Amino acid sequence: MKRILSGMQPTGQLHLGNYFGALKNWVGLQGSYECFHCIVDWHALTSAYEDSSRVSDNCMLVAADWLAAGLDPQRSVIFVQSHVPEHAELHLLLSMVTPVSWLERVPTYKEKQQEIQGKDLSTYGFLGYPVLQAADIILYKAECVPVGEDQVPHLELAREITRRFNGFYGKIFPEPQALLSAMPRLRGTDGRKMSKSYNNSILMAEAAADLDKKVRPMMTDPRRKRRTDPGEPEDCPVFDLHKVFTQDEKRSEVAHLCRTAGFGCLDCKKILLDRMHPVIGPMRERREEWMAHPERIKEVLRDGAQRAGQVARATMTEVRDAMGLLRP
Amino acid sequence: MKRILSGMQPTGQLHLGNYFGALKNWVGLQGSYECFHCIVDWHALTSAYEDSSRVSDNCMLVAADWLAAGLDPQRSVIFVQSHVPEHAELHLLLSMVTPVSWLERVPTYKEKQQEIQGKDLSTYGFLGYPVLQAADIILYKAECVPVGEDQVPHLELAREITRRFNGFYGKIFPEPQALLSAMPRLRGTDGRKMSKSYNNSILMAEAAADLDKKVRPMMTDPRRKRRTDPGEPEDCPVFDLHKVFTQDEKRSEVAHLCRTAGFGCLDCKKILLDRMHPVIGPMRERREEWMAHPERIKEVLRDGAQRAGQVARATMTEVRDAMGLLRP
Repeated sequence: MKRILSGMQPTGQLHLGNYFGALKNWVGLQGSYECFHCIVDWHALTSAYEDSSRVSDNCMLVAADWLAAGLDPQRSVIFVQSHVPEHAELHLLLSMVTPVSWLERVPTYKEKQQEIQGKDLSTYGFLGYPVLQAADIILYKAECVPVGEDQVPHLELAREITRRFNGFYGKIFPEPQALLSAMPRLRGTDGRKMSKSYNNSILMAEAAADLDKKVRPMMTDPRRKRRTDPGEPEDCPVFDLHKVFTQDEKRSEVAHLCRTAGFGCLDCKKILLDRMHPVIGPMRERREEWMAHPERIKEVLRDGAQRAGQVARATMTEVRDAMGLLRP
Repeated sequence: MKRILSGMQPTGQLHLGNYFGALKNWVGLQGSYECFHCIVDWHALTSAYEDSSRVSDNCMLVAADWLAAGLDPQRSVIFVQSHVPEHAELHLLLSMVTPVSWLERVPTYKEKQQEIQGKDLSTYGFLGYPVLQAADIILYKAECVPVGEDQVPHLELAREITRRFNGFYGKIFPEPQALLSAMPRLRGTDGRKMSKSYNNSILMAEAAADLDKKVRPMMTDPRRKRRTDPGEPEDCPVFDLHKVFTQDEKRSEVAHLCRTAGFGCLDCKKILLDRMHPVIGPMRERREEWMAHPERIKEVLRDGAQRAGQVARATMTEVRDAMGLLRP
């Protein structure tokens, strides 16, 4: 089995964008790959350094959602980045061979600096984000990284850093390949991209009552001002959700009824909610079970860190030798 | 006793510039301070990444010279940076709060890039040199760092990074103070600054015959073309050595004889050699003793890493808690 490394920042409770954009895919890969799933708390510090007080709680929330979604700690290695300090050591060593210009030209570098207002992202740590990401992956000699299209440039940079390192010190690391997965675009309740910072997201384990409260007033295609106005499903955030929750045949019917003004938006949302509850409900219950026993989550993370650490230590011994460092 | 951290790159056998510029001072501080002496092999990689194959041997050579010079492993903690991986972790965490602009404005950053020809120093690791240096120091909560005048800007930056970290996460670290020491300027045998890369240096543990061979043809004040031409000691690299090897009274006499053409340059060098041999000889013998037993050097470094690691681990536990990271 090939090895996969995937990471997610500890942002807090996960929303449906996180679930359908990454997590659901990871769950499905568990049979076919050896999976390492890392909660990248150090990455969170690159932008949240001014107030990092919630990082600890957020790691627990993300871990609970991962487990609730179906990541299986027996089959997969689930751990927190900062619990395996070898990530920092490899990041430092990779920094020696990484030209600053490679980092400055990452498209998301300037973009994110402009996007995130009120935060100073002109730090050395934020600039080095892709170096840390490369270290996360190759520390486990992962052959594949499940990513969406938008992450491909980052992975290409990780491959370049790996090639440069291998060029100097010998072929220590495989070049990680992208395992492209469909990343459905999910808009939030206000029609913008679903995002925690926009306060427009629906949680993966949303409470039943809150789910209704969020979906009913959701923005729809603005063309449907009146019940009799036909709409265009592709322009409707509610239809984004139908795409991931509603089966093909029923979805075609929903689209047709929208385009022909055959039903109202509230009817459309009721059909959607009937499909959301049976998916979200069991995840919520599993999440509650885990959250009621935080010591069990901690045990999963401790065990994961121990298994990840074993691989990481073996890699670093090899790396130190290849670079000619003095053995302790 | 206040704590000191001092570091030196593993450049190979040390020369008199290293000895009188730093090492001799460190030896003298051992009674009055708790001393941590670190061979900073990761720092060496910031410029020597293209061929790092000698780093391991060079660590052993530096350690042998340190011990030969009189660093006492009973009183001082002598260790190799990469043997205490917490340096890398703290470097990563400090990187989050360090503005890139602070690093770009370090005077030596552009200077060294231009000075060292044929090496590409436009790497992320080289840019982060001062962050790693700050981590080295504050990891041990060192109150003082013995430096020469030229290192003061680096230490000021380490203090700024420390202040910024403390500002976000609480007063974890003391701001390290400069312990200014006189750094006599030693020119090499060709009159340029004594430096390994200029191939003009005299080793701290130079073999007796080689010492004569290097000092006799040494460049002197160019004014003394003939034996009868008077010279100016301040312009003579040989007199640099008299300043560190020859006692005040005798040195005044030497200076007078030079200025009045009272003796020839070879006479001057003989007086110098008579004083160099009794200092260098015993250091060479102690060095040979250590080099004959590399396993004893390794034992010193292992013990040092163990003692340094204990302090480092305690600091990092405090740092992780202060930053709000999840305890393992």
